[in-house]
Amino acid sequence: MSDALNERDAEARVRDSFARQTIMTTIGASVQSVRKGEVEILLPFSDNILQQHGFIHAGAVATIADSACGYAALSVMPADAAVLTTEFKIHLLSPAKGERLRAVGRVVRAGKKLVITSGDVFADEGGTSKHVALITATMMVVETATGLRN
Amino acid sequence: MSDALNERDAEARVRDSFARQTIMTTIGASVQSVRKGEVEILLPFSDNILQQHGFIHAGAVATIADSACGYAALSVMPADAAVLTTEFKIHLLSPAKGERLRAVGRVVRAGKKLVITSGDVFADEGGTSKHVALITATMMVVETATGLRN
Amino acid sequence: MSDALNERDAEARVRDSFARQTIMTTIGASVQSVRKGEVEILLPFSDNILQQHGFIHAGAVATIADSACGYAALSVMPADAAVLTTEFKIHLLSPAKGERLRAVGRVVRAGKKLVITSGDVFADEGGTSKHVALITATMMVVETATGLRN
Amino acid sequence: MSDALNERDAEARVRDSFARQTIMTTIGASVQSVRKGEVEILLPFSDNILQQHGFIHAGAVATIADSACGYAALSVMPADAAVLTTEFKIHLLSPAKGERLRAVGRVVRAGKKLVITSGDVFADEGGTSKHVALITATMMVVETATGLRN
Repeated sequence: MSDALNERDAEARVRDSFARQTIMTTIGASVQSVRKGEVEILLPFSDNILQQHGFIHAGAVATIADSACGYAALSVMPADAAVLTTEFKIHLLSPAKGERLRAVGRVVRAGKKLVITSGDVFADEGGTSKHVALITATMMVVETATGLRN
Repeated sequence: MSDALNERDAEARVRDSFARQTIMTTIGASVQSVRKGEVEILLPFSDNILQQHGFIHAGAVATIADSACGYAALSVMPADAAVLTTEFKIHLLSPAKGERLRAVGRVVRAGKKLVITSGDVFADEGGTSKHVALITATMMVVETATGLRN
Repeated sequence: MSDALNERDAEARVRDSFARQTIMTTIGASVQSVRKGEVEILLPFSDNILQQHGFIHAGAVATIADSACGYAALSVMPADAAVLTTEFKIHLLSPAKGERLRAVGRVVRAGKKLVITSGDVFADEGGTSKHVALITATMMVVETATGLRN
Repeated sequence: MSDALNERDAEARVRDSFARQTIMTTIGASVQSVRKGEVEILLPFSDNILQQHGFIHAGAVATIADSACGYAALSVMPADAAVLTTEFKIHLLSPAKGERLRAVGRVVRAGKKLVITSGDVFADEGGTSKHVALITATMMVVETATGLRN
């Protein structure tokens, strides 16, 4: 594989890929920040992503948590490699309510074949922040020549 | 706790709760069938729930897989108890593409405090069906008097 | 990679590798059966593998469950490839007590880089069998030339 | 439930329970430290807990990781409540080799019914420390009157 991208190129790559995920537009999520090995995604509260009690659905929480982890892994990949989620586990710690959710994904260990990641989701409300979810995820490294995830 | 509901009442309860999950309308999911301890949810392919390669996003797969498991657990609860997902793990086995996804959730063990569930997601296409995801999830039993999940 | 082994050679390979795991002798576990894609491991109850209430410790349950999954994956590998557990999740459904535990691991999907497996652990007692644990595990395929897991 | 124990009493309770886990004597593990919400367990390298390449078996790694998490949860329980592992997931990041393993478990969120925990396992060798495993676990709170886990 070629060398890892610098931070600016890594961020451009993450933002470009994210922009092609139509589900993010559908739920209203956006990329807040990209550093090498750490990506933050925001999801404002909205009426069309709720479960039956008016909290944000666990599926939406998982969507941004998985993506924050996946893009954290992508941010440390060289240009000719990308990543694909093979599994994740998420703990739902508290009801997902507030003004917005904020998912932070981080690389725990970057191997040649797998990148192990972890992340947290926080609910921001009136200047305070509550820990609402905890995720660990395995990303498989794929050569971009195969056409998989960029 | 009171007695478990009969199958007709359990189904009515599941469908009523599902109808109040706005995310399901947003992604286009529906309840296909409800039996005691087993629930099936459908998600037709659509352009607004995709990841960057045109497959259905892992977050959408997880959304219906978690819900199939949660409602399978709810289907065996008495009227005065409901369930809440506390954690789930999902393996993504193959790209989620095809005409529709079909998630089947089942109760593995129903305890007084926790209901352990597992499920599978299949991609249906032209009469064939491919196994695309595997989930295991822990549901916490809550008394409905607390106002949580019905 | 070369062709997959036939069932007799796969079994010999599994039993040879298992015999070199000193922890199995320490806890008293043995291989019961090996088929292509499915391996069964036995663990008789003994006084030196218990937790504080006299049940078999979750760590011992996990040890045989992980090994049953890992060897199920190994049983479908060609001679020049082996597997390594990268992660597993285990649900402990009931106290692990009885005459013996029996772990059954199965291949869910065998890919080129990863083999996804699942398994169940049963407690056998007086002719009856109780489901005490459920595992899902990801095995990474490694070339044996690297020296990893045979 | 009654009040939580002070740190000295919590430590005594953890050490007393640990001493009754015969598997810990069998594999050679010991409690290094107990603080409210954080427990550290040591496992020296020994020849009877290995897998086929001479590394410490994933099952032994999981045994101390699960116990560190379980006892971290127990350390915040009142006298009339204890905990029981209902599920855990462990990522194996690197081969478990070195002079000893050191598992650190921490409470992430302590609820009335469940305590969510996470932990890390490090391999210590010649003054350096390598991250070899990452665990997240769900502990179920049980009243000690039921006789379960002290």
